[in-house]
Amino acid sequence: MSGGERALRLARAYLSRVAEPPAPALASFVAELGPVRAAELVRRGEVPPAVDSQTSARRAEDRAEDDLRRVARIGGRLVVPEDEEWPAWPFTALSVAASHGLRCGLAPLALWVRGDADLAGLVERAVAVVGSRAASGYGQHVAAEFGFGLAEAGVTVVSGAANGIDGAAHRGALAAGGRTIAVLACGVDVAYPAGHQALLERIPRQGLVVSEYPPGHTPARHRFLTRNRLIAALGDGTVVVEAGRRSGAKNTAATTAALGRVLMAVPGPITSASSQGCHELLRSGEAVAVGSVAEVIESTGRLGDDLVRAGRCDGPGPPQGDAMRVHEALGLAGGRSAEAIAVESGVELARVRALLPELELVGLAERDAAGWKRSQRTTGRGDA
Amino acid sequence: MSGGERALRLARAYLSRVAEPPAPALASFVAELGPVRAAELVRRGEVPPAVDSQTSARRAEDRAEDDLRRVARIGGRLVVPEDEEWPAWPFTALSVAASHGLRCGLAPLALWVRGDADLAGLVERAVAVVGSRAASGYGQHVAAEFGFGLAEAGVTVVSGAANGIDGAAHRGALAAGGRTIAVLACGVDVAYPAGHQALLERIPRQGLVVSEYPPGHTPARHRFLTRNRLIAALGDGTVVVEAGRRSGAKNTAATTAALGRVLMAVPGPITSASSQGCHELLRSGEAVAVGSVAEVIESTGRLGDDLVRAGRCDGPGPPQGDAMRVHEALGLAGGRSAEAIAVESGVELARVRALLPELELVGLAERDAAGWKRSQRTTGRGDA
Repeated sequence: MSGGERALRLARAYLSRVAEPPAPALASFVAELGPVRAAELVRRGEVPPAVDSQTSARRAEDRAEDDLRRVARIGGRLVVPEDEEWPAWPFTALSVAASHGLRCGLAPLALWVRGDADLAGLVERAVAVVGSRAASGYGQHVAAEFGFGLAEAGVTVVSGAANGIDGAAHRGALAAGGRTIAVLACGVDVAYPAGHQALLERIPRQGLVVSEYPPGHTPARHRFLTRNRLIAALGDGTVVVEAGRRSGAKNTAATTAALGRVLMAVPGPITSASSQGCHELLRSGEAVAVGSVAEVIESTGRLGDDLVRAGRCDGPGPPQGDAMRVHEALGLAGGRSAEAIAVESGVELARVRALLPELELVGLAERDAAGWKRSQRTTGRGDA
Repeated sequence: MSGGERALRLARAYLSRVAEPPAPALASFVAELGPVRAAELVRRGEVPPAVDSQTSARRAEDRAEDDLRRVARIGGRLVVPEDEEWPAWPFTALSVAASHGLRCGLAPLALWVRGDADLAGLVERAVAVVGSRAASGYGQHVAAEFGFGLAEAGVTVVSGAANGIDGAAHRGALAAGGRTIAVLACGVDVAYPAGHQALLERIPRQGLVVSEYPPGHTPARHRFLTRNRLIAALGDGTVVVEAGRRSGAKNTAATTAALGRVLMAVPGPITSASSQGCHELLRSGEAVAVGSVAEVIESTGRLGDDLVRAGRCDGPGPPQGDAMRVHEALGLAGGRSAEAIAVESGVELARVRALLPELELVGLAERDAAGWKRSQRTTGRGDA
């Protein structure tokens, strides 16, 4: 890293901690003067009043060096707008929204990420899958199916790592051997929710854990709302799987619509409180109904691509293809041995043995006396 | 009845049997010459070729006198366009559709009805509630709730008396002490489906059983499709509660849209085959999502009326108000005695005792050791 590059990264790291996002005055100040000069002036307090009010409380807290070291220790880094992997195109919608005075706008000043994947590459084809923490069994099943199916189709699954729908979506994508991004409302080194510590350590191996908050930042209610705009912006569209009338997912939904992204909602029983928010979105016409992965892909306008990809499935495919093939080789009525599934799917036995518990975890496979079969809850991915 | 009136009714009775509806050439012929003269010429075979091909097979079958007697014996009559109770306005949409060459068009030549209610009065405020015969428990529950709630709000529930959704909707309306119309694809004296014989005998006491087919006519596949246009035409809108991909309810839905009526669909689990047809209607934007009786009423554009009615509920209300009051007086956690419910609801004990089994029948009430309570499946009508 050159000296200039290093100064730039240190400046952005400092700026990411000095103000609570979104900080429009600071963002304009940085855009005008460049991050290095802006950071210098902020540190000295030589800023216009609007910037001062956003930065005065924390301007003496310069932990940039330490933050970069901390995140490096857990396999992370700071991605800045000057990097090639900065998702410039997805964030354009945020800037446009901000220029229209929409509160949901404003690209982040930098992103802390954990994992090796290239961020821009990961969001080239991405769909956000979000919903209630208090999800029903139905909602978690659908989220896992969608996460699995999208990942399998080569689409990155973006979500917020929360309990309920988010977690199920991430797990589905992981089980498919696909790619997923968790956007946090706290530092990428903070395990929140605590029960998702293992999940958050697993995600960087197949995708990225991302946050605009510096290491050690704890979550707060307003940070979830601020974070939601990044989830909406990073996907080509957002699927709301389940949402109560007051679910935070409705905030992500509103942002999705404001950003001009495709908003989708999954219908559910009208007798279920967890689906009320989805029904409101459908009834108002804000969201389009989606009942399968194919419909999500169709709605986000990438069907052509996927038909081409599907045509390639006969040859040796990407890793996510294995999970699909194993799933399709599962017994329907009674179980089958892993050996039989390996023969049927053409996937090597060791990989079959690794994938089966993954499929079980997301509710796509179950065991009986004879071996492995498809879960009773699911008879085909496309219909689920 | 005057001689002219009698001749008219006999002519329409004859015409209703002589051609298989919809018979556009015959309809034009009748519109041009009047029913008495048209019937005379049809009987003699002195008709244009198009009319001849629609009537030659049955023109010798003049059972008008007998048909009128048969239907009178079961408390029925023939309603003709010349009657005040002819639903002229609801059928206008059919004529308009026919004039645009739509197959779903064409008002019936006459309607055989069973029951005392005034047909035009009954459809002044009406909503069709339709769906699959192979309905899920969820679908039947929703149909019963909607039937109950609509009837309670003074809206006539129109359906087709089929197994599954139709039957549940009718039963819900009956349980509320409200009004319902069953439009059959066979004679009003034919019990089809056989399991609905009791239902079909019950409906005329609170509404009407209606058919354009003469007494004794048996149902046939094409007659269901032809019948569906009348269901669509008689409602201000149609709610599809559940429909598989190939359900006949989708035909009623298409007709509803073609007639310019409000088409509504109830969301359900995307994992349920019974909801696939509803989701297709929602996804394509053909139908608006409805999740409660209030939303159905709002969608059919009568909200103002209903708020006024709701305001009157404190005073002595129409019969359907009793069922609502009894339902609201049911225990939530544990059961209550009929006496306690009478006190709580202000509905007289005999009526409470009559209504409780009705509510049980449609799944709105259940018994326990202590008495009657709300069904576990339902905690509030508006949310169901």
